[in-house]
Amino acid sequence: MLIKYEILKETLEKILLSRNVLKEDAKSLAEIFANNSLDGVYSHGANRFPRLIEYMDKGEVNPTTKPNIELEIGSLCKMNGNLGIGPLNAKIAMDKACDLAKVHGIGLVMLGNTNHWMRGGTYGLEAANKGMIGICFSNTTANMPVWGGMDPKLGNNPLVISVPRSNGKHVVCDMAISQYSYGKVEQTRLLGKQLPYPGGFDSNGNLTCDPTELEKTKRFLPIGYWKGSGLSLVLDMMATILTGGNSVADITKLGDEVGLSQIFIAIDPSKVNSSDKTNNFVEKIIADIKSSIPVKENGEVYYPGELSAKTREENLEKGIPVVDEVWAKIQSLIK
Amino acid sequence: MLIKYEILKETLEKILLSRNVLKEDAKSLAEIFANNSLDGVYSHGANRFPRLIEYMDKGEVNPTTKPNIELEIGSLCKMNGNLGIGPLNAKIAMDKACDLAKVHGIGLVMLGNTNHWMRGGTYGLEAANKGMIGICFSNTTANMPVWGGMDPKLGNNPLVISVPRSNGKHVVCDMAISQYSYGKVEQTRLLGKQLPYPGGFDSNGNLTCDPTELEKTKRFLPIGYWKGSGLSLVLDMMATILTGGNSVADITKLGDEVGLSQIFIAIDPSKVNSSDKTNNFVEKIIADIKSSIPVKENGEVYYPGELSAKTREENLEKGIPVVDEVWAKIQSLIK
Repeated sequence: MLIKYEILKETLEKILLSRNVLKEDAKSLAEIFANNSLDGVYSHGANRFPRLIEYMDKGEVNPTTKPNIELEIGSLCKMNGNLGIGPLNAKIAMDKACDLAKVHGIGLVMLGNTNHWMRGGTYGLEAANKGMIGICFSNTTANMPVWGGMDPKLGNNPLVISVPRSNGKHVVCDMAISQYSYGKVEQTRLLGKQLPYPGGFDSNGNLTCDPTELEKTKRFLPIGYWKGSGLSLVLDMMATILTGGNSVADITKLGDEVGLSQIFIAIDPSKVNSSDKTNNFVEKIIADIKSSIPVKENGEVYYPGELSAKTREENLEKGIPVVDEVWAKIQSLIK
Repeated sequence: MLIKYEILKETLEKILLSRNVLKEDAKSLAEIFANNSLDGVYSHGANRFPRLIEYMDKGEVNPTTKPNIELEIGSLCKMNGNLGIGPLNAKIAMDKACDLAKVHGIGLVMLGNTNHWMRGGTYGLEAANKGMIGICFSNTTANMPVWGGMDPKLGNNPLVISVPRSNGKHVVCDMAISQYSYGKVEQTRLLGKQLPYPGGFDSNGNLTCDPTELEKTKRFLPIGYWKGSGLSLVLDMMATILTGGNSVADITKLGDEVGLSQIFIAIDPSKVNSSDKTNNFVEKIIADIKSSIPVKENGEVYYPGELSAKTREENLEKGIPVVDEVWAKIQSLIK
């Protein structure tokens, strides 16, 4: 069904308030979830909301704690997320990185002991809306083998890089280091389809597009095979060293995906260019890729974040597609 | 043939001195090239040295200019590479980023108007040897299509992330955003072999492991298909905006791969941890991945940079493998 943005936001806000989330936080958090669905990232919007409430009800996500600053030195700030609400913690961390960047040109916030941030792109957009280049990444529970290994040891550790555009349609590259998410593989299986490109190894050790085989072997592929394997590992190392928090291996031992380590970097391009000049650089590069010869007749190539921005406009006008079962589940959470 | 490290270094140094490279620079540059071959990165060591000399002889690489600082503000420093020697410029830039990190916790150097840095891992190691986390990337000439496009528009824009270890065997993830380099594809064709995994699309638009087809279509794959396509693009945007230098499209118009834009970031973990604590985090993560169940009987998984460190030890003892033709070519450059 199609749900209007305002209705979705208000519904989520009401549920959050019933879980003792502070008034202002409930508003901000409902907006983050609703925006994720608005942008077409349903998996980390409305679809995922019930799990946050479940974790709150289990006491794994504390609805009222706030991050506190443990150390601030130069361009660095170390925060303890106090196992609070992941998206709110992450927003505070990226805002702080932007504040540091305004002063020093670049700001780095290390957020340990936090929870799932949902869609990483949210914080890329947060930085871009302030005219900043944003870089952030999170570790996760182990869900991919190291290259050459059989058993999951690596997180899919999402990595986000955003570049601001003056028209607000920012460039946001938001990618997990796994080729496909567990959710995408499950969805493909439920639809009785095959993945468009191999997502991992089957029981015979061959690359496979078959979601059933993948769910059996759990040998999910990192992007670029050995390359993504290395990238995932160094992201976890950086996150763990700098936050002093949990590594992928530590998180995996906890069972549920909680107590994560996250890094937020903002860079202020106004320190080196006028905003017009920065924008011109970006627009020239976009124009160049848009001049590509498309593979499909009348096809088009997109910059990262372009399709989300298009979906945003469409969903704002027509309403947000929400699966019936998800909407029923959300309704059932209203106390 | 096998060439002793000292002999390789002295030979390269002699050639550089004959091209008016300053005494100290010749020593440092010869060492960088010799170290790349020592670590097994032959493609960007001895094999590539003749091309640097060619570019010097053509006047595209200036053997005597140095980078100058155009702007220094907070944790940021913007440098003009003045089309000098790429590896020396990059080393100076990473050293400056480390100096800034010592003061501010993090340092960012934006190096425009520079030349090919050869092996990006060199500057990751440079940071790690100073106890720093290093991040750097470069743009390149266009050599991959955007996802959904036919013609090369993206650079393979190498990205390097290094994490220091107290035993000096640092973790260095050094990856181009293309699945395979042009050099690897050519080498595979010359050996009459197929690539181990698909490297791009063939003339029918299907994924292929055939190097001959790939060289024909030039539709090289980015890592993770659409993901690497987006990542390559945002790296180019960041490099171009911050340096104010050439984008991938600009470089491509120049013909030879010169006038590049590069970013160097150093983070000082001693601002948040004792070096023992930092090292413990890294060792725990390495121990965890080493406990993987290997795919091959008696197999092993490696952290990024591990095999280079092993090769370094072997080549230092036994001598560095240099292809006969390459050695003859280098000899011919001695004036």
